[in-house]
Amino acid sequence: MTATDPRVSAGSTLDRIHRPDDVRALPACALPGLAEEIRALLVETVSRTGGHLGPNLGVVELTIALHRVFHSPRDAILFDSGHQSYVHKILTGRRGDFPLLRQPGGLSGYPSRAESPHDLVENSHACTALSYADGLARAAALRGRSGGVVVAVVGDGALTGGMSWEALNTLAVGGRPVVIVLNDNGRSDAPTVGAVGAHLAQLREHGGDFRLSVFENLGLSYVGPVDGHDIGRLEEALGKARSMGRPVLVHCVTTKGRGHPPAEDDAVDRMHAVSPPGPGPAGPTWTSVFGDALLDLGARRPDIVCLTAAMQRATGLTAFAEAYPDRVLDVGIAEPHAVACAAGLAMGGMHPVVAMHATFLSRAFDQVLLDVALHGLPVTLVLDRAGVTGVDGPSHHGMWDLSLLQAVPGLRIAAPRDARRLRALLADAVAADGPTVLRFPDGATGPDVPAVRERDGLAVLHESTARDVLLVSVGPMAVTAVRAALKLADQGVGVTVCDPGWVSPPNPALVALADSHRLVVSVEDNTRVGGVGVRLAQAVADAGVTTPAHALGLPAAFLPPGPRPEVLRGHRLDASGIARTVLGLLGAGARPPVPPPRRVQPARRR
Amino acid sequence: MTATDPRVSAGSTLDRIHRPDDVRALPACALPGLAEEIRALLVETVSRTGGHLGPNLGVVELTIALHRVFHSPRDAILFDSGHQSYVHKILTGRRGDFPLLRQPGGLSGYPSRAESPHDLVENSHACTALSYADGLARAAALRGRSGGVVVAVVGDGALTGGMSWEALNTLAVGGRPVVIVLNDNGRSDAPTVGAVGAHLAQLREHGGDFRLSVFENLGLSYVGPVDGHDIGRLEEALGKARSMGRPVLVHCVTTKGRGHPPAEDDAVDRMHAVSPPGPGPAGPTWTSVFGDALLDLGARRPDIVCLTAAMQRATGLTAFAEAYPDRVLDVGIAEPHAVACAAGLAMGGMHPVVAMHATFLSRAFDQVLLDVALHGLPVTLVLDRAGVTGVDGPSHHGMWDLSLLQAVPGLRIAAPRDARRLRALLADAVAADGPTVLRFPDGATGPDVPAVRERDGLAVLHESTARDVLLVSVGPMAVTAVRAALKLADQGVGVTVCDPGWVSPPNPALVALADSHRLVVSVEDNTRVGGVGVRLAQAVADAGVTTPAHALGLPAAFLPPGPRPEVLRGHRLDASGIARTVLGLLGAGARPPVPPPRRVQPARRR
Repeated sequence: MTATDPRVSAGSTLDRIHRPDDVRALPACALPGLAEEIRALLVETVSRTGGHLGPNLGVVELTIALHRVFHSPRDAILFDSGHQSYVHKILTGRRGDFPLLRQPGGLSGYPSRAESPHDLVENSHACTALSYADGLARAAALRGRSGGVVVAVVGDGALTGGMSWEALNTLAVGGRPVVIVLNDNGRSDAPTVGAVGAHLAQLREHGGDFRLSVFENLGLSYVGPVDGHDIGRLEEALGKARSMGRPVLVHCVTTKGRGHPPAEDDAVDRMHAVSPPGPGPAGPTWTSVFGDALLDLGARRPDIVCLTAAMQRATGLTAFAEAYPDRVLDVGIAEPHAVACAAGLAMGGMHPVVAMHATFLSRAFDQVLLDVALHGLPVTLVLDRAGVTGVDGPSHHGMWDLSLLQAVPGLRIAAPRDARRLRALLADAVAADGPTVLRFPDGATGPDVPAVRERDGLAVLHESTARDVLLVSVGPMAVTAVRAALKLADQGVGVTVCDPGWVSPPNPALVALADSHRLVVSVEDNTRVGGVGVRLAQAVADAGVTTPAHALGLPAAFLPPGPRPEVLRGHRLDASGIARTVLGLLGAGARPPVPPPRRVQPARRR
Repeated sequence: MTATDPRVSAGSTLDRIHRPDDVRALPACALPGLAEEIRALLVETVSRTGGHLGPNLGVVELTIALHRVFHSPRDAILFDSGHQSYVHKILTGRRGDFPLLRQPGGLSGYPSRAESPHDLVENSHACTALSYADGLARAAALRGRSGGVVVAVVGDGALTGGMSWEALNTLAVGGRPVVIVLNDNGRSDAPTVGAVGAHLAQLREHGGDFRLSVFENLGLSYVGPVDGHDIGRLEEALGKARSMGRPVLVHCVTTKGRGHPPAEDDAVDRMHAVSPPGPGPAGPTWTSVFGDALLDLGARRPDIVCLTAAMQRATGLTAFAEAYPDRVLDVGIAEPHAVACAAGLAMGGMHPVVAMHATFLSRAFDQVLLDVALHGLPVTLVLDRAGVTGVDGPSHHGMWDLSLLQAVPGLRIAAPRDARRLRALLADAVAADGPTVLRFPDGATGPDVPAVRERDGLAVLHESTARDVLLVSVGPMAVTAVRAALKLADQGVGVTVCDPGWVSPPNPALVALADSHRLVVSVEDNTRVGGVGVRLAQAVADAGVTTPAHALGLPAAFLPPGPRPEVLRGHRLDASGIARTVLGLLGAGARPPVPPPRRVQPARRR
């Protein structure tokens, strides 16, 4: 910084950045200082709020260079998997709001069209940006709009996902001005796997001209590799790409966690995502219980092999991978391949366990239906972070999986209510000779929820002499259902709370139990449209049982981010809300009172 | 053929092929004759039964060479998208059954595990074979089985699909013995599009050594290009690949339709699939009505742009593509990219129409949910071949789409009951400022089904003075529902038949109408689990209406191939079956009779 340059005053440079124009107006000598200020703001804020620290520390210089070379929003800048857009937010007028990142009423941790015209894509599942870019560039050409460039910023991990290749196939031959900025930090959450990762490493080491890259073979121009922390060289490379007026890939080599020693020193994932300070989950988490149980099973079952789509740590597979490195396959961000490869492994005599966040099941439905279920193969899908996941927003709530999976023939779905049950259901699942699913939420398991009695695969968690309502809980909704039952007991309503454990297809014993109640109410943390509850209601009606069955769950709507208990309460899925709903339904249209059964089991605790 | 060779007797060579061993035992001089006999059998049989003629004519020599070099089933031979497996069937003991190809009780048109241990994968959606191959090779290594090789036969079209690249990424670096046989005929249904197709053309022209191929960049060994109709050279190349004991791609260049002049001369798709002789569909088909209507809309609406996943002709887009070549994009076998690219086109101001067979929607659910619906974008999905599709078998029935799409927020789904309604609903869909779906079956539309009256978006197709049953029909089930109503009238049951046209989300007017009937029965040619019917039942109950609502549809099961009317009748979805079911439900648990409304509209015909 030169004090004599009139454009550079004393004090914070960042305070004077209100829009991308302000970034472009800065002299080059001010940019390292700006980068330093942004990095300090990122570390200070994200350490407090939680969020994706490592990825954003890696793209500080790259984002500055992007906004100096391209004119957002006339040039469309798309961030693939939006968690690398914090710096973009800071430079596009949201610096003042940044301290409230991921807080109620504050900035989203992902691009948000409501926040800014500089944000375009809200879906934060990876590998979509090249498809959007191809579409936007084609739309501009068809509408006769010229001058704008479409810029897609994609991580190297995104190139392990098939959608990116599908898009490259049509984008590369179109001749339209698209700049693909490959932010190559050698890793997605984990180091980037496979042949693509190896090829990028060759390019990083030898440069783009030692031989033709994959990208050139597919018709793209290739610029790079460029030091992704050298703003001058980045501007030069991006400017060259811009001037070419055709599809170009700029290979930028960055360091995840750059400039923050605790992140640079984190060998596992460079502080990919950090949690806010304060007490973590109270006690073991669902994912850690799963990981421990799987490790135990792995010792007895040499046929168990695990697959992850670039999320080995997040899905709880680390201990298993350390114990049995040959029996874990990280396929990259490639859920379709993970499931179909699992089908191949199962045909070959193994029992694959495919672990993924529930939200990503949507990527692999066809493979679950036709590769696994059509062949009746023993594959276990483990869906963690199911239901309301918290602050990651609408594209990360795992609230669609039960609706998707209901109709898959021969597929059995389990939802454990507590840690003990998770271990038992996982053992059942990997012992089954057909496809199974186990789904559970994020966070701490809490204490085990004891059963009053268990029969025919049903755990009765609470019962009364009067059989007014059969409350069927799905997985972790059990504890809430028991609390609701206690509230209803205070109002003189007799409730049986039942946890089927295996929630789909419906347990015939549960259907039979429905017949001895006036009303059935199911509670799930999936959308109530097409979920476990409506399938149970259908089974009840199919059996000729006239007890009305009502499914409670999340609406079929995109839910904003928020803490799980708050979101559930907001949709009347807390104990009070459930009790109120049940009272309303009893008043409206339940069957007349059912005479109490002749003999009620004493409410023994196990 | 030399008459002095004791292994070659006079008469048919093919008659003496009962297993792959017999193919291996033949002298090289007998092979051209064998190929000729197979080709004659293919043309004679498939011309009579219908089926995939062009693809199988193209792989005669290749399949002979495969069975001479590899030892099936010890070596696993996988055919990607199983329609190219006829020759494999003929050589693996099914020559005698071949005349009954695709006939009731005869051979399936796809690999079938029930038919033969030489058939492994029954899912005939493309692009999965490399994933299976990776899984099978890993399973063999983990179980300590050596000696066997996994062979995946994939078309060049499969390389436009992302899953193939996801699999190459992990397969290429594994070091396990996998031979990828690239059957490159330059086309899937249509000529192979995009950068991959262009790269393969370069390799075909210049050979593999003029520069590094994409495959070598990704760590595979590359052998080729090989003339895919020269058995000697094929055996040499495949033998070399086999001996390498690592992942190898053998690039075989074949001609689709080879040796059958009518197929070789068919410039559109080389007789990809032929229909059995006899009268075709009586009158216009659903797909042709769609194609004509789209062409008309295209003239008035320059913002309409169409996308297809390698099925331009089959989905009815040919006329539109001829009229507006710039406004059709064939993305290859890449449904996820098609939908996400459509989202980008919509963001750029266009109204995309994505046309695909209903069965392939399962590949793109995540993109419909998060790329299109989360952004509320005006994209219209047109799903043809919905419901029971006939002889293509369990992986091609389009019976899951309604269940998948129910829960997608803001998505509206239309199912036309006839040609007139198809045109109207398509016009509505492309006029909507949000995501829409239009789904219709294969085959002829039949005559239009007139409405008695239309109000609030509901078409009443039949009504009686007594309001016993409200029969809600989905799309083409309308005509069957009216016939069922007439049968029920003979039994003294009063039926209102109603076609909502827009079938999801449920029309509130339909829910209100339910209240004035004793029983609601919906009829759809989707699985009844999670479909339109259960969502309607849920809406009826949510509104406090106590009329029981029962959803009829296909079971949640994999259905064998069969003619649509027979399959529907087998699941009581013909007029008699529906009438019988309704009578049973009326006896079991319908509401007590509802007093007739004070004034009934006369049943005017329009």
